[in-house]
Amino acid sequence: MSMLNEALNWRYAAKRMNGQMVPAEKLERILDAIHLAPSSFGLQPYTVLVIDDPALKATIRERAGDQPQITECSHLLVFAAWDPVEETHVDELIHRIASERDMDPTDLAGYRDMIKGTLRQRTPDQNVEWAARQAYIGLGTVLSAAALELVDASPMEGFDPVALDAVLGLRDRGLHGVVLVALGYRDTSTDWLAGMKKVRWPRERTIQPVG
Amino acid sequence: MSMLNEALNWRYAAKRMNGQMVPAEKLERILDAIHLAPSSFGLQPYTVLVIDDPALKATIRERAGDQPQITECSHLLVFAAWDPVEETHVDELIHRIASERDMDPTDLAGYRDMIKGTLRQRTPDQNVEWAARQAYIGLGTVLSAAALELVDASPMEGFDPVALDAVLGLRDRGLHGVVLVALGYRDTSTDWLAGMKKVRWPRERTIQPVG
Repeated sequence: MSMLNEALNWRYAAKRMNGQMVPAEKLERILDAIHLAPSSFGLQPYTVLVIDDPALKATIRERAGDQPQITECSHLLVFAAWDPVEETHVDELIHRIASERDMDPTDLAGYRDMIKGTLRQRTPDQNVEWAARQAYIGLGTVLSAAALELVDASPMEGFDPVALDAVLGLRDRGLHGVVLVALGYRDTSTDWLAGMKKVRWPRERTIQPVG
Repeated sequence: MSMLNEALNWRYAAKRMNGQMVPAEKLERILDAIHLAPSSFGLQPYTVLVIDDPALKATIRERAGDQPQITECSHLLVFAAWDPVEETHVDELIHRIASERDMDPTDLAGYRDMIKGTLRQRTPDQNVEWAARQAYIGLGTVLSAAALELVDASPMEGFDPVALDAVLGLRDRGLHGVVLVALGYRDTSTDWLAGMKKVRWPRERTIQPVG
């Protein structure tokens, strides 16, 4: 079994955490993985807020079904999709690529127009949903990264999105919260889920060779 | 730097591949990672088709903007979200959990009703979109898993979804294709993108500590 698969077997979505802090070096490596995560066109149309303030965590917990891991975690990540996704973002990306690769931006005009054309084929809501999907690539990446560091990571979709956006002032920043992740350490003494057998569909149901 | 982050730095979305096959053992480990990937409620509401038949790859390439890596890859993965997501799926999950954990299914009635209640709050289309997001967790996971095996993985959203579903008979199976991944090996002699510097937003744009 690969190291990643061992880590994925080890991990679970801890419902209770013990308040222990994730060491800074580990945390930075986990966050680096998000920063390095792939995305469509490389646009990476989301922002990840990193919260360790106890009062703010408590406020968010109230808007997220009172889930204990939100205050018991070390750091709470808020994945926020860009809302709206704008054509100026594409222009920024083109300038970033040109600058990083020492190219003339005009040589990227075809790429720019192709991305903008894709965005224009969709409604603004569809573009935000697309941005959310990209955030979920980051989510899949961070769950792997945390597990490899033996850090628990508990993803949460159960929150009031309007209230969360309001608490964090996300709408004014062109952002919309789509998923939370509590990073920390499982409390095996209080978490009913700790030690439970991992359940997946039979592999042949999820993974199907064709032909 | 962690092994995962080194792998993420090494990877890129290869646009040309050299036709070399991924050894079976590596492929199975990569597919295992998808099978182990987390999902909301553990419902894992998607199926991944694994295609290595050249003729079928060629047919799909025609419906996916003629992207060469579709026929030049070793295996093409089709992530297909459940469409529709049905309450019977939840019943199946409850039975699976009960059986795997040696529990009485009636003890999971509360969990079952909570999941069904969540599905009912959304439209059928929203549930499919939610299933697609879960597939993107699997996508993030497989891109990490492949990179750790030094296998290239090229995700693709650019295809005709209706035509893809038709070619693979997905609609009759309650599935809907949401993203493709070509697994294989980069052809550095023909891929213009090979060797290009990886571009990401400045880290402080994507990852933002609060407070």
